[in-house]
Amino acid sequence: MGFSEKLADAVRRNGSLLCVGLDPDPAQMPVPDVVAFNRALIEATADLVCAYKPNLAFYEALGNAGLRALESTLKAVPGHIAVIGDAKRGDIGNTSRAYAKALFDVWGFDAVTVNPYLGSDSVEPFLSYAGKGVFVLCRTSNPGSAEFQAMEAHSPGTREERPLYEWVALRAASWKGPASLGLVVGATYPDELRRIRSICPGLLFLVPGVGVQGGDLETAVRYSMDDRGGKAIINVSRQVLYASRGADYAEAARRAAQSLRERIRQAMAARQES
Amino acid sequence: MGFSEKLADAVRRNGSLLCVGLDPDPAQMPVPDVVAFNRALIEATADLVCAYKPNLAFYEALGNAGLRALESTLKAVPGHIAVIGDAKRGDIGNTSRAYAKALFDVWGFDAVTVNPYLGSDSVEPFLSYAGKGVFVLCRTSNPGSAEFQAMEAHSPGTREERPLYEWVALRAASWKGPASLGLVVGATYPDELRRIRSICPGLLFLVPGVGVQGGDLETAVRYSMDDRGGKAIINVSRQVLYASRGADYAEAARRAAQSLRERIRQAMAARQES
Repeated sequence: MGFSEKLADAVRRNGSLLCVGLDPDPAQMPVPDVVAFNRALIEATADLVCAYKPNLAFYEALGNAGLRALESTLKAVPGHIAVIGDAKRGDIGNTSRAYAKALFDVWGFDAVTVNPYLGSDSVEPFLSYAGKGVFVLCRTSNPGSAEFQAMEAHSPGTREERPLYEWVALRAASWKGPASLGLVVGATYPDELRRIRSICPGLLFLVPGVGVQGGDLETAVRYSMDDRGGKAIINVSRQVLYASRGADYAEAARRAAQSLRERIRQAMAARQES
Repeated sequence: MGFSEKLADAVRRNGSLLCVGLDPDPAQMPVPDVVAFNRALIEATADLVCAYKPNLAFYEALGNAGLRALESTLKAVPGHIAVIGDAKRGDIGNTSRAYAKALFDVWGFDAVTVNPYLGSDSVEPFLSYAGKGVFVLCRTSNPGSAEFQAMEAHSPGTREERPLYEWVALRAASWKGPASLGLVVGATYPDELRRIRSICPGLLFLVPGVGVQGGDLETAVRYSMDDRGGKAIINVSRQVLYASRGADYAEAARRAAQSLRERIRQAMAARQES
């Protein structure tokens, strides 16, 4: 089953647009074993989410043991839940092909995140994978994302000026590939989120930044969905993973995920009524 | 020994500004074993280069065996030669910290490449490593790099307009950290290389794109060095690695590296005379 179908199926089955970021941080984990931690979290939340999103950095930081833990984690995710490999890769074509192979063929992710700085030929190798999903970084959730992304820009010889992140959104929306394309837009910049949704109706968004990073969930839902089929996957990591630092961490994660799923639902209902 | 000292030492000892990209591609390798291939290449060229640059994509594409091969490859590099981990990572601060840990502490690279799209807070965790090197992607060597990098840009509320890659160069040059900072500038865009050198005198450049990608070596050397201490490491990958597809691949790689080292020397001499 391809990424789009798997995601749609999980959204329907679990009534959820919540994605949980599986980012194990030994300094915050209530148990020392990454696999045990992730397995407990997955068991506690698999009926509440549409996707999981492991960020590769947290596994790579733990060396070989971390990569083995990622392997075991992926096996622990039920087959009907989509898994997004948050890797933010991007390189020259020849090399992006190798990264696409690593993420899709070796790791088996259903979707990945990619960085657009190198241009369309750096993303094309990912888009060439039928049945996969590719989320292009557009406006990221971090405090410094405006530094380059919010620069007003125009192509040489033309006058139409837009913030760089809007150009990334518009260009990315035009890129073709058998893979399905989406954008990463941070909940921490609601005005920008609203603007990107208005110029990219119908596109799938992956929205991080809710919770510890400070993005408002209800605003993110209101601005990231549209009536033309535009959906958003709302990602939460630390607020779920580290809901409790005690032995009850899995139950606490379940309660946090339940509450987030419900708040997303209510925000969607409120949006449709307004 | 820190990256800068190690690099300076290797440059002096080997009389070379050549960096060889260790990017094993099974489709092009004359022998099937990555470690054997890399070891033979390192033995054949270690007295001719100032650095090696493994691109992580090619190892990740081979799964666990590839990562083990990278580990063995790093062990095979003599301690006095700098190793640049070409990873092009970049994420929100919390996550970039994990990547920096992976690349510097786990893998032990002397330097890395990073992507600037997320802004200075995504690069800061790398720059916080004393004794390491951080090369920020500025103008990349691929055909599509102009798509966003060459857009004319200005900060909102200000009027000074420059191509995005120039802003990246100028901003990066102002970022502070105990690590030493450099820029990645492709040899395939000589005018841009010249321009970036003129606005960033003294900064270390990592220049890929010579050889298979079509960049002219002599022009790259002429435009990437300056009289204010600005040096460039000239990276060549495929032209050396796959100089021969036969059993003589290591000797052929040595001859290619010798020729490249000599051409770089001559181009430097010609630059200083002109």
